[in-house]
Amino acid sequence: MKTYRYPFFPGPTSVSENVLHVGLTNFGSADVEPEFLDLYKKCVIDLQKILNTKSDVVIMTGEGMLVLWSGLKSCLEPGDKVLAISTGIFGTGIGEMAKSIGCEVKTIEFPYDCSFEDHFLIEKTIAEFKPKMITAVHCETPSGILNDLTILGKLKKMYKVPLFYVDAVASVGAVHINADKHNIDLCLGGSQKALSVPANSCFMSVSDKAWSIIEEVGYQGYDALLPFKDVKTTGFFPYTPSWVNIAQLYQSTQNIFVEGFENVVKRHENCSKNVIKKLKEAGIKLFPRDEKYSSPTVTAAYIPDGFTWEEYDKMMREKGIVFGGNYGELEGKVFRIGHMGTQTNFEELCLF
Amino acid sequence: MKTYRYPFFPGPTSVSENVLHVGLTNFGSADVEPEFLDLYKKCVIDLQKILNTKSDVVIMTGEGMLVLWSGLKSCLEPGDKVLAISTGIFGTGIGEMAKSIGCEVKTIEFPYDCSFEDHFLIEKTIAEFKPKMITAVHCETPSGILNDLTILGKLKKMYKVPLFYVDAVASVGAVHINADKHNIDLCLGGSQKALSVPANSCFMSVSDKAWSIIEEVGYQGYDALLPFKDVKTTGFFPYTPSWVNIAQLYQSTQNIFVEGFENVVKRHENCSKNVIKKLKEAGIKLFPRDEKYSSPTVTAAYIPDGFTWEEYDKMMREKGIVFGGNYGELEGKVFRIGHMGTQTNFEELCLF
Repeated sequence: MKTYRYPFFPGPTSVSENVLHVGLTNFGSADVEPEFLDLYKKCVIDLQKILNTKSDVVIMTGEGMLVLWSGLKSCLEPGDKVLAISTGIFGTGIGEMAKSIGCEVKTIEFPYDCSFEDHFLIEKTIAEFKPKMITAVHCETPSGILNDLTILGKLKKMYKVPLFYVDAVASVGAVHINADKHNIDLCLGGSQKALSVPANSCFMSVSDKAWSIIEEVGYQGYDALLPFKDVKTTGFFPYTPSWVNIAQLYQSTQNIFVEGFENVVKRHENCSKNVIKKLKEAGIKLFPRDEKYSSPTVTAAYIPDGFTWEEYDKMMREKGIVFGGNYGELEGKVFRIGHMGTQTNFEELCLF
Repeated sequence: MKTYRYPFFPGPTSVSENVLHVGLTNFGSADVEPEFLDLYKKCVIDLQKILNTKSDVVIMTGEGMLVLWSGLKSCLEPGDKVLAISTGIFGTGIGEMAKSIGCEVKTIEFPYDCSFEDHFLIEKTIAEFKPKMITAVHCETPSGILNDLTILGKLKKMYKVPLFYVDAVASVGAVHINADKHNIDLCLGGSQKALSVPANSCFMSVSDKAWSIIEEVGYQGYDALLPFKDVKTTGFFPYTPSWVNIAQLYQSTQNIFVEGFENVVKRHENCSKNVIKKLKEAGIKLFPRDEKYSSPTVTAAYIPDGFTWEEYDKMMREKGIVFGGNYGELEGKVFRIGHMGTQTNFEELCLF
């Protein structure tokens, strides 16, 4: 396999060495060994700390898209009203996913190069539309935007919106997430971004209010949350859990606490500043219209003048560096530097 | 972690050494490296050989239950008629899953200790009920039954039933499966049984007829088959594939071909005979009413007289041996010896 000295792809990130080594253990059957349940519960506690929540956390076997679908399908029924707040491809996509369930979806789309700008519009729409769920994305990976969730959290509470759903897949474990403070009912994370674990686990916090709605809806499927409601007490999972997945995820959360969460956050912030500085020095234009919107985990920038993405990508790969391209309306215009988890060693890199 | 010298749990099985070692590789991003797509396609070809099919094969990130749901939800709509042929817990469960989608389900339940006995009843029901899909289970793990699919395959063709869905999770890679010969449209497999890979990958063959129905239905979700239709040509997956999962699965299929598939099949058959012989010698009664029904991958037997399951399990664990208990109506009555994949070294074991 071709490898690169400097992988800066915005996920899946390079896996931590000690996480890789956990994969060498031949674990027993998660269905029968009580040790598995202990590990699962310890991993839940770690994720609660990382998400800053007292809510339950459910861990599933699958890529991050699994929790994105799970949170919607487990809580929504055809005809339910969903307000999707979007500043990018995922924000809009979540609204489309809710439509496919038969929900009545209203999407407020802000330009992809900034955050939630018009608080008044959001408030007015919530007041008039009265959604069952507000959806938002914390970090929009394709455009490198980190959205401040404060205002949405306040409006959710003020207007008694039953559910606030936040995709935090690309920020979890690198950025402060305040699920409880921001009144988030479903806070979604994945393994393959800042946690630097293979792309086969995902998780989500589930508030008491969300559990009661999940019980009312009674959705069934591989992505159903309901069968996870009592797993921590019964030990009966809706499918055989993958012990190695949970063990690798737990190693990763432990890595964060060994380093210290504040240190991890600072490391990402510093790396982000450094990347932006280097882009400026190289004359490469940042995609976000203002640095303040740029996520500490991923930086989006315009492909340098005179290059196609293919040419720039090829040149960087020859130096041992891999960045990410883009898709949708950003394809061929904007590239991405993924600096999260293991991938914050940006100092030695030259962008040209 | 507590480990046992002789794990004979009926899945997840002990992972092959060289599969574990594949997990040490720090793979790149499956989204951007063309090498990943090559590997995926090679893995598909191997699985086609193992399933004996010319149909496409889709590989998903998740536990086996993912393909069980995927095959149903991708092909069925509320009101569709499903005939579930059951000789055990999974056979009946699949019918219940189809009901949860809103299908009209008829279930023919045979006793759990034998196979499809009444061919006339099956034929009459197909002729009258005219199902869109027939579902069946190849190996019923809880009861250790292997069902011969010949008759169902013939009836499916004779009565022009659009879809034949077969759960082969607990037989794939150990037993001859003839997906094309038996007119199977959706043949489902998982990683954690005879393939001896962690419980985080699953796959399914998809016939041309199934693809056309999947397109008509247009189901969306994490478990949706439709977005996988063109992945082999476009390289665009509906979510980031887990490269390590595919690499481990491929190592496992390669292990099978290095040993030779016929040899693998014989190894399982010999092990099964040996297990049954040892059970007889120990005076332990086989659960299947006749040896001919017993699966080469798992043997179900009555818990020896004078023991509860907990007592017998404890005694065996003290010898370094782990078997599986049971659930549903078999709980506390029948235990299971999982001898598949890596777990066929039964010669040295003493059952008492």
